[in-house]
Amino acid sequence: MSDRFLLTDIWSALEDLRARRPLVHNITNYPAMNTSANVLLALGASPAMVHAAEEVEDFVAISDALVINIGTLSPPWVAAMQKAATRAAADGKPWVFDPVGCGATPYRTQAAVELARLAPDVIRGNAAEIMSLAGKAGTGKGIELVSRADEATSAAAALAARTGAVVALTGAVDYVTGGGTPAAVHTGHALMALSTALGCSLSAVTAAFTAVRPPREAAFAALAVFGAAGAAAAARCRGPGHLPAELCDELYSMTPETLRRHARIEANPAG
Amino acid sequence: MSDRFLLTDIWSALEDLRARRPLVHNITNYPAMNTSANVLLALGASPAMVHAAEEVEDFVAISDALVINIGTLSPPWVAAMQKAATRAAADGKPWVFDPVGCGATPYRTQAAVELARLAPDVIRGNAAEIMSLAGKAGTGKGIELVSRADEATSAAAALAARTGAVVALTGAVDYVTGGGTPAAVHTGHALMALSTALGCSLSAVTAAFTAVRPPREAAFAALAVFGAAGAAAAARCRGPGHLPAELCDELYSMTPETLRRHARIEANPAG
Amino acid sequence: MSDRFLLTDIWSALEDLRARRPLVHNITNYPAMNTSANVLLALGASPAMVHAAEEVEDFVAISDALVINIGTLSPPWVAAMQKAATRAAADGKPWVFDPVGCGATPYRTQAAVELARLAPDVIRGNAAEIMSLAGKAGTGKGIELVSRADEATSAAAALAARTGAVVALTGAVDYVTGGGTPAAVHTGHALMALSTALGCSLSAVTAAFTAVRPPREAAFAALAVFGAAGAAAAARCRGPGHLPAELCDELYSMTPETLRRHARIEANPAG
Repeated sequence: MSDRFLLTDIWSALEDLRARRPLVHNITNYPAMNTSANVLLALGASPAMVHAAEEVEDFVAISDALVINIGTLSPPWVAAMQKAATRAAADGKPWVFDPVGCGATPYRTQAAVELARLAPDVIRGNAAEIMSLAGKAGTGKGIELVSRADEATSAAAALAARTGAVVALTGAVDYVTGGGTPAAVHTGHALMALSTALGCSLSAVTAAFTAVRPPREAAFAALAVFGAAGAAAAARCRGPGHLPAELCDELYSMTPETLRRHARIEANPAG
Repeated sequence: MSDRFLLTDIWSALEDLRARRPLVHNITNYPAMNTSANVLLALGASPAMVHAAEEVEDFVAISDALVINIGTLSPPWVAAMQKAATRAAADGKPWVFDPVGCGATPYRTQAAVELARLAPDVIRGNAAEIMSLAGKAGTGKGIELVSRADEATSAAAALAARTGAVVALTGAVDYVTGGGTPAAVHTGHALMALSTALGCSLSAVTAAFTAVRPPREAAFAALAVFGAAGAAAAARCRGPGHLPAELCDELYSMTPETLRRHARIEANPAG
Repeated sequence: MSDRFLLTDIWSALEDLRARRPLVHNITNYPAMNTSANVLLALGASPAMVHAAEEVEDFVAISDALVINIGTLSPPWVAAMQKAATRAAADGKPWVFDPVGCGATPYRTQAAVELARLAPDVIRGNAAEIMSLAGKAGTGKGIELVSRADEATSAAAALAARTGAVVALTGAVDYVTGGGTPAAVHTGHALMALSTALGCSLSAVTAAFTAVRPPREAAFAALAVFGAAGAAAAARCRGPGHLPAELCDELYSMTPETLRRHARIEANPAG
């Protein structure tokens, strides 16, 4: 990807995704499953939720991309996540890691650190999660964004360097590092933080784009398309209640104009 | 059921269901639980989600019908499903089987085959699932409809003959076989395929109708009522986002007119 | 709390909650997770869903309140619930217990009875659940309200006396007992019974309020705020489909006027 990665390239990625309709294997948290599935369907992908250790490897083999999200982890799920990630890496299938709540408890942090060693293509998290996963002073407030995103960019860069993954650090402004010049994505809407599972759904969308683009382009496309849909959706809402449904409708009817109006990529951002 | 089964009979089944308010025991997949419960409530049934092996048999005993859906199966869940199905069959309680993703992995196919031996009253699935469960060449794309429904009708008939169940094969046109003359149900809307858990919810609705009608009539009633609600709901939507909510509202306010406008049953369909 | 506890006090509690943004640790049932999280976010709290025995104690330690709901219980979850409740009680962290379906099966009743011994601050349930947990003749119909609320108030008082908890008995009229003069809360809307997970979400809201008020005040605040939001939301709905989304929007934009219009507390109710 050049530094001039443009919204026209992102639109092209979305068209390719819709044409291919990739099968996205989700191992994600319980409250995010329904929303993630609906977001993927509205985007143009085909979701499946499959977590049993007895079948995750076989399912990776028939999928186009994998997303692993530790939001409601437990030992049998972590074991299946490790099997699935290992198989994806071995098969050259792209996989996206969402380290939900990394830093909140030792068990969770340890599970995240181990999964991050299994060669994810993209890691998507908020500042607290990325800083904790990078080994910086963890904060404890669970899924909360307790650090400012601009303080976490160096942690993101370090994590990208260590893991080889593209790191998508999301917050009021999103930041992508790894595999090229860092860049910021200005998109989304503050109301999105008041609706659960949207960050998780963004990770699933990122996985869908890895089926049709390399990790860095996939991260930009996911942030821009999902953020633009969220911004357009929020403009139709009086509160967060209908935001997931409106977001799905905006994804379903996404246009180049909506994308251009609500998403802007800035290479080499200050900070 | 005679071949002249009419929408007036279906309306009568819905009235009986609303009067009885059957308790429907759901052992279903995580992303479908919330939607299935809301659909059952809107329909007029009483849902419960109970999956622990320690209590499923006791819960079958107080329920009016059972639905088992393997969408997010794992060994402890499959063990509980087997206990529940065995108890339902022993007690003469009707139960509906939804073999989600049958054919996608060997583990899933094996679990589905074993459950199908436990005397389900209705099996509801898409073409890929029904063909795989019938032992025809499985396709692998998970929950995707990768075969045309009209190619799967002979598999459905074979499955009905082998299991003794009524088989409801759903797709662009739905097809019911077993226990009488095969018939097609023309209803629903293409947008429904872009909203997760609607097929699963249809299986739950089928279970609710088995509490007030024999399996074949229950299958027709479920397909017609649910499909008509979906079609009426889709007409109010600009995308799939609000479809589950609108579908619940249409179920809640279903009228004979909506049913007649959006559902048509055709006995002895060609193919 | 005096018997003259007023809606102005409840409004003040909501303002304090929004200012503090308490982290609420939820161990709840699968179908309620997404709805509970969205309700808590719209209210102004910060939700987390954490259930692994390996981390629940650590997560209790960083949370402001805990809610335990046995809707989809199983042995590993019950073990984690016991660890979390024990830790909360030891640390003086408030916790709320929702004994979903208590009385429906022996396994469920036993689990509920054992959890109720672990010093919950508030117990929130319907008449069948509260009566069963109090040791009165259990009814069997699962999550159904099979007893009239006014028959269950003595069971609620006995349960409050035995456990030391405030008991919030919910139904057409809600009833709070324990820690002071019993009082009724008149609020809500009949349509709420046709939307899943709203009772569970109310328990989560109660936990959020325990982070800023003692248990009795928290129970009143939760019932009044949630019920008023539900009543205002129902007035915007043609059926139950959009009720959870509208309820979130009403929580998000709650005003003293909405609270006053839709909630009324009556001390020393007859019966």
